[in-house]
Amino acid sequence: MINADDFKAAFRSHPAGVALITADAHGVPIALTASSVSAVSADPPLLMFSVSVHSSSAVVLRLADTVVVHLLSADNLDLAVLGATSGIDRFSDTERWRRLETGEPVFDDAHTWLRARILHRIDAGGSTVFVGTAIESRLAREGSGGGAEGLVYQNRTWHRLSAESVADPADLIRESVR
Amino acid sequence: MINADDFKAAFRSHPAGVALITADAHGVPIALTASSVSAVSADPPLLMFSVSVHSSSAVVLRLADTVVVHLLSADNLDLAVLGATSGIDRFSDTERWRRLETGEPVFDDAHTWLRARILHRIDAGGSTVFVGTAIESRLAREGSGGGAEGLVYQNRTWHRLSAESVADPADLIRESVR
Repeated sequence: MINADDFKAAFRSHPAGVALITADAHGVPIALTASSVSAVSADPPLLMFSVSVHSSSAVVLRLADTVVVHLLSADNLDLAVLGATSGIDRFSDTERWRRLETGEPVFDDAHTWLRARILHRIDAGGSTVFVGTAIESRLAREGSGGGAEGLVYQNRTWHRLSAESVADPADLIRESVR
Repeated sequence: MINADDFKAAFRSHPAGVALITADAHGVPIALTASSVSAVSADPPLLMFSVSVHSSSAVVLRLADTVVVHLLSADNLDLAVLGATSGIDRFSDTERWRRLETGEPVFDDAHTWLRARILHRIDAGGSTVFVGTAIESRLAREGSGGGAEGLVYQNRTWHRLSAESVADPADLIRESVR
């Protein structure tokens, strides 16, 4: 095994998309920012993420059957910061969120969210890996969030993807031809 | 459940870091580009990723005990393309890779790689979720890869993170004060 500092250093520079995960158990809502969300399979529609057992949201996530995964774009940076800030009431601004009929909190500023039923919880070190099936979604529409710029976290810094950040593989070919 | 097209549309715009995963089984090397790699826990050092069972690398990944996860930066775009291109011999350029003493292929152009022992393989739809422990690493050094720019995949496009792509949360505060 490598030591924790080396491991953290390696992954600190690995960029990741950003999601706000919400859930509810017994009327207690939670919201946390996660950079570990990814698609596993499209048919059936499965996604995964991991959360530290030391997270303030861990108890609710252990009890909840479902979660809402908000896939954040750059204009949702405030939601990303909200779910990543300790010691605040993430639900204090009651105009920003509502409950779905099924009880989960949802932040409608996010252009895209997926409600997922948890299928597997796998204990892994000090964390839990969750695998869930998407059972309901709101998708970004073309013209509104459809063209939204991506939000990325790397080296403790937020980044915004745009036309300016595109890396063109054709440059590789030009280089090798040169 | 939501349909596969909606699910793919949702995740297509979710940005992700890029890794090249290599492994070997019975002398057969594989290399594939994955955007699902993330850290699960630092102590113990655990990571996860998922791979479609229909991937050409699936058989070797089922048999291999260990993998090498190369965390790619923007100057490794050629490695990302190599592992994402179908129908080519990804090992034809023998100057680009070597075998570790333990047998796994490694591409030394990647500034950071982690060798990991697979702990769990979880069947999930048409994919397998792998959880592994990092047992050896090469880390980017300051001045060489330490300051390397991040490589991100979103909407079927490669992006390069840089000082220009930084999104400053202080702008949020200024906006809300305005």
